[in-house]
Amino acid sequence: MPNTNNKTNKSAKAAGKTILAKASKDVPMLRAIKGGKAAPPKPGPAKPAVKPPPVAVADDVPVIALNLVPAKLSPAMAAYFKKCQVKLGFVPNVLLAYAFDVAKLETFVAMYNDLMLGDSGLSKLEREMIAVAVSSQNRCYYCLTAHGAAVRQYSANPLLGEHLVMNYRVARLNKRQRAMLDFAVKLTASPWSVEEGDRERLRRVGFTDRHIWVISAVAGFFNMPNRAAPATDMRPNTAYHGQAR
Amino acid sequence: MPNTNNKTNKSAKAAGKTILAKASKDVPMLRAIKGGKAAPPKPGPAKPAVKPPPVAVADDVPVIALNLVPAKLSPAMAAYFKKCQVKLGFVPNVLLAYAFDVAKLETFVAMYNDLMLGDSGLSKLEREMIAVAVSSQNRCYYCLTAHGAAVRQYSANPLLGEHLVMNYRVARLNKRQRAMLDFAVKLTASPWSVEEGDRERLRRVGFTDRHIWVISAVAGFFNMPNRAAPATDMRPNTAYHGQAR
Amino acid sequence: MPNTNNKTNKSAKAAGKTILAKASKDVPMLRAIKGGKAAPPKPGPAKPAVKPPPVAVADDVPVIALNLVPAKLSPAMAAYFKKCQVKLGFVPNVLLAYAFDVAKLETFVAMYNDLMLGDSGLSKLEREMIAVAVSSQNRCYYCLTAHGAAVRQYSANPLLGEHLVMNYRVARLNKRQRAMLDFAVKLTASPWSVEEGDRERLRRVGFTDRHIWVISAVAGFFNMPNRAAPATDMRPNTAYHGQAR
Amino acid sequence: MPNTNNKTNKSAKAAGKTILAKASKDVPMLRAIKGGKAAPPKPGPAKPAVKPPPVAVADDVPVIALNLVPAKLSPAMAAYFKKCQVKLGFVPNVLLAYAFDVAKLETFVAMYNDLMLGDSGLSKLEREMIAVAVSSQNRCYYCLTAHGAAVRQYSANPLLGEHLVMNYRVARLNKRQRAMLDFAVKLTASPWSVEEGDRERLRRVGFTDRHIWVISAVAGFFNMPNRAAPATDMRPNTAYHGQAR
Amino acid sequence: MPNTNNKTNKSAKAAGKTILAKASKDVPMLRAIKGGKAAPPKPGPAKPAVKPPPVAVADDVPVIALNLVPAKLSPAMAAYFKKCQVKLGFVPNVLLAYAFDVAKLETFVAMYNDLMLGDSGLSKLEREMIAVAVSSQNRCYYCLTAHGAAVRQYSANPLLGEHLVMNYRVARLNKRQRAMLDFAVKLTASPWSVEEGDRERLRRVGFTDRHIWVISAVAGFFNMPNRAAPATDMRPNTAYHGQAR
Amino acid sequence: MPNTNNKTNKSAKAAGKTILAKASKDVPMLRAIKGGKAAPPKPGPAKPAVKPPPVAVADDVPVIALNLVPAKLSPAMAAYFKKCQVKLGFVPNVLLAYAFDVAKLETFVAMYNDLMLGDSGLSKLEREMIAVAVSSQNRCYYCLTAHGAAVRQYSANPLLGEHLVMNYRVARLNKRQRAMLDFAVKLTASPWSVEEGDRERLRRVGFTDRHIWVISAVAGFFNMPNRAAPATDMRPNTAYHGQAR
Repeated sequence: MPNTNNKTNKSAKAAGKTILAKASKDVPMLRAIKGGKAAPPKPGPAKPAVKPPPVAVADDVPVIALNLVPAKLSPAMAAYFKKCQVKLGFVPNVLLAYAFDVAKLETFVAMYNDLMLGDSGLSKLEREMIAVAVSSQNRCYYCLTAHGAAVRQYSANPLLGEHLVMNYRVARLNKRQRAMLDFAVKLTASPWSVEEGDRERLRRVGFTDRHIWVISAVAGFFNMPNRAAPATDMRPNTAYHGQAR
Repeated sequence: MPNTNNKTNKSAKAAGKTILAKASKDVPMLRAIKGGKAAPPKPGPAKPAVKPPPVAVADDVPVIALNLVPAKLSPAMAAYFKKCQVKLGFVPNVLLAYAFDVAKLETFVAMYNDLMLGDSGLSKLEREMIAVAVSSQNRCYYCLTAHGAAVRQYSANPLLGEHLVMNYRVARLNKRQRAMLDFAVKLTASPWSVEEGDRERLRRVGFTDRHIWVISAVAGFFNMPNRAAPATDMRPNTAYHGQAR
Repeated sequence: MPNTNNKTNKSAKAAGKTILAKASKDVPMLRAIKGGKAAPPKPGPAKPAVKPPPVAVADDVPVIALNLVPAKLSPAMAAYFKKCQVKLGFVPNVLLAYAFDVAKLETFVAMYNDLMLGDSGLSKLEREMIAVAVSSQNRCYYCLTAHGAAVRQYSANPLLGEHLVMNYRVARLNKRQRAMLDFAVKLTASPWSVEEGDRERLRRVGFTDRHIWVISAVAGFFNMPNRAAPATDMRPNTAYHGQAR
Repeated sequence: MPNTNNKTNKSAKAAGKTILAKASKDVPMLRAIKGGKAAPPKPGPAKPAVKPPPVAVADDVPVIALNLVPAKLSPAMAAYFKKCQVKLGFVPNVLLAYAFDVAKLETFVAMYNDLMLGDSGLSKLEREMIAVAVSSQNRCYYCLTAHGAAVRQYSANPLLGEHLVMNYRVARLNKRQRAMLDFAVKLTASPWSVEEGDRERLRRVGFTDRHIWVISAVAGFFNMPNRAAPATDMRPNTAYHGQAR
Repeated sequence: MPNTNNKTNKSAKAAGKTILAKASKDVPMLRAIKGGKAAPPKPGPAKPAVKPPPVAVADDVPVIALNLVPAKLSPAMAAYFKKCQVKLGFVPNVLLAYAFDVAKLETFVAMYNDLMLGDSGLSKLEREMIAVAVSSQNRCYYCLTAHGAAVRQYSANPLLGEHLVMNYRVARLNKRQRAMLDFAVKLTASPWSVEEGDRERLRRVGFTDRHIWVISAVAGFFNMPNRAAPATDMRPNTAYHGQAR
Repeated sequence: MPNTNNKTNKSAKAAGKTILAKASKDVPMLRAIKGGKAAPPKPGPAKPAVKPPPVAVADDVPVIALNLVPAKLSPAMAAYFKKCQVKLGFVPNVLLAYAFDVAKLETFVAMYNDLMLGDSGLSKLEREMIAVAVSSQNRCYYCLTAHGAAVRQYSANPLLGEHLVMNYRVARLNKRQRAMLDFAVKLTASPWSVEEGDRERLRRVGFTDRHIWVISAVAGFFNMPNRAAPATDMRPNTAYHGQAR
């Protein structure tokens, strides 16, 4: 997911530049979005190993397991991709995945940015915490990787990201944050069972009705990519894994 | 959900006009979006009953259980609400629910309309069938009601809507449709377990990779309102229940 | 299920008369109970459609997916079927399904009528509410259709039927009714976990021990047809779908 | 459950006689059906223990946790109870539990006896095997005890009863019996998922459509007492535990 | 599991002697541990039956479904097996199963004996109760049989063993024992959900932190053989079934 | 868990030395094992943050949430702890947790080392892969952290560790490894359902019966600490999180 605040390490940035070089020609950049299983392993950032590793190193090639023809980006989206490249060092793979259809890409970016980066009663960190707790319930590789990194960055607490990826109940949260995540995870696991009592529990720790909307919207939203990602075997950018450890 | 193709019965249309009248003043229209439990039952379209019914008749007042202050609609959204009113006889409650924040309303409408009404390898009916099968898995009252009505209308087969609401496995579908719903429901219930074999099953009944994206996107999308609706006790417009029976 | 209080629409009544005409010859009436998948679609009550509907219209032919030879009805059962025809406009398909074996039919009718129509501390509506909430937990097409119609009729509140079919938690019930359905659904979903505390919750809202027996018996009972119906692909009479909307 | 073929050990028979003595006076026999938790432990068939056992010995007093006033038995039911006493050495507690309402008792006995003891394509043992496998899925103490004993007796294989109580998959069954239990347990655990393919699997191992009805009916039936028993804390006669070990 | 306190019936003892005779030659004793399905049924302790029983009588031959070559026992283990033979009348099959590798056998015996028989704040009966409740949650044939027998013996209450095998909630336990089993079963079914509140519930009924460790360790431990047993189709010694009834 | 092959970074080693210094005095080392929630945050390896982090940094103080008095280590265990300190830079917290009772510590270490480090048909990496896949199913923070680090190290493939922590199905494994993990995870999630067909699937990809024992034993084993860890809120050494990224 496009998180425009972070710093990436050099090797990812270098790889990013190559992608962007292609991106200026628009279509070739998206060559990465192609089906097939036998993606040629490219030399990745893994440490030297005396014996060959048992699995492929290039984890995110192709980006998804569907063979989709990339579309020509609109000026707005081309600019947005460039901005991602500059700020993050890469274009988040979810955007590359959507780029076969600019209209879909734009509606996704619009909703995502309003929800996760826009003004809101919840901090960006809190929204990312919900993203990870929900994605852990759904065991979503893409979202756990991308948003786990975001939690590590925003919180300046690498372990918090690990806690939320593995089991949010082990994180030492305050009552407000715990209630927020309990609500989000219950809503994810058994949405039919959420009722007034659950909203009351949020109000009791200080959330307003507007906050409850935001918590619900963020929890609800991640249930969408938590399906789209496994449905297409969407792979997160490898750079996320090493960020903010 | 805004389905701009359908015909509504007279009483719903009449009620709709009243709402629209208020809508022209923008804010008052949204007075319906208010919290509290003791909503005064207004005379609804229910049949005359000799003995008083055991539960309130006005099922969708308030629209949600959160007390949110309605925003002033943008011209685009005001026009869109008017169009809903004319074509459907009412503004779908999900739009009224989102109308406390125009930016959120617009991103929702944009994504929804592109996904469900835009050009696609899947028919509108097929997309609505996915919506209902997914919403049945999640037992979502709002979506089952609104999209169950849409399936009844698009298919001219009232029973198909009932089948998908209750248990899609009882519908007598062709292999293509059945594979499509099996994928969507598995993706909803255990997203972590969806893999290449599942995509292969779709390809085997004739779906292209582009179709698979659409099926995944629609199934994924409804997992979002399937959370937002119970999280806020969002109530579907009463008019849906009687449509296309 | 035999609900002898309701009024059916004309087309269903007409279809019913045809069945009854055959029923007087006893065996032919049951010709509908035959296996095979290629049931010839008969012109049903669906609206005229310009393009052919994607699925078969005659939803309840055959009544079950087992090829069973119908038995000669006993005089008592023949009279009962006639009474159903007169009062309901049709013989409920569950009775046709059982009619391959008169002894089984009679024990089923005896237990059903005592439980659902006999004198009891619970109203007929309350018992039907339990039937639908339990059948929703089990996603039983037959029972949701037949008993959903009964709830709509008895309550003179069409939406209550929809609520219970989709998710009983969205119905605006009083405490007594809610406790009753919570007990019935828990008993259905995880019977091993029901204990004294659950009975105490019923007593606290005013139920006597005799009421608890009835709630338990009705909830327990519907777990039986909730298995027999999917096991045999039992189809509800099409007329139910349109009743009391 | 009334299994009229078995032989009981002496101590149970002696206890049985006492009950029957009271039973001839009809009402007092049913004094056992009373609520409350502090049942006075009567000297049971347990072995002498040097230190007092940690839990009450009289496991089935009261028979259920509801305080119901026993009814006067009809002549037919009084005769039936007497027959149970003679053949089994005791009246099965499920009958005592139902005896607060003779109409309910009679419909239960009629359905049970037709289903489990009547002429059928399945042997009595096979029907009891289904009863136990279903009751194990539902973890029903009453039915596992009563029908586990019946499987031990009918099969002359005490271990088969234990296998079915604990996990039917460990029993070394032939293909026919295994398919039968797989169907019954799937129908119990996720009835919504049973379809034509499941019926086909039964046909492939030699079951006719009539057999499929019986398997479905028995599996469905036990889902009823599997709810009524925990709902009322119904306790099986202690004598069952020691039978046919 | 090696429970060195019990008395076995004569036939089991006789069979045991034969095994021990072979055991003195070390390797032949373990001939029982061999794969394949067609184990020749040996005359077992089942009652004479006029018609052949539907399943094989020799339930525990072979001990596991893996073809493993038995190892030469160490002097310590040979002595331990001899002690089992003398005290129990047989060597528990789990030990025979492990005996293909003496190191694994020894670590298993060491951990087991420390945990279940060593000095501890919990009685041996309480530890066996946990073993059975956990094994019931996991439906483990081996452990339910061996430890169900142990509960019957230690408690001098045959029914308590049955309760814990079938559904521990039906046992009439004191608050301390009930809390202990609730904790153990929750820990088994959803370990990720166990938190400080659960520990507090144990403390509230009088358990110390040391007790909590023991409860956790015993519950955790049985989750191990509860996997190893079904993974290898490990069969309990037939003698257990009849013990302490 | 004691993995004696790895290299740790300097800061962890430094911290380790401090602990070892205390460890030479035996008892004080274990002061960390104490209950209570308000562990004072010590300055950890986290990056400097301009604003205070929202949760405590010292994630593994105390090691467990039980107040247990540490025991005097046996010479063997004191030597083992020293070896851990030298090779790993720290003593794994699970060992500190067990150190309140030397007998338990020794049986745990003996079983663990034989199983995970001893000679076996499976590589150490394969056994660690099973450990992580099982622990992910159980959402065990301790084991995911400690063994996720081990997978990253042994495989020289940091992403493989992430895959197995989040959802092993996204790892690009060969057929042998995939079958191995499918077996281990099924055995963990529904042990009762594992049967001969599952073993056959392992044999088909080349595993011998001895391998099947090892896979079963490792999968079974981790179901034990997967319970003991949440039961006691056992916290993994912070150093693991940063290893082999």
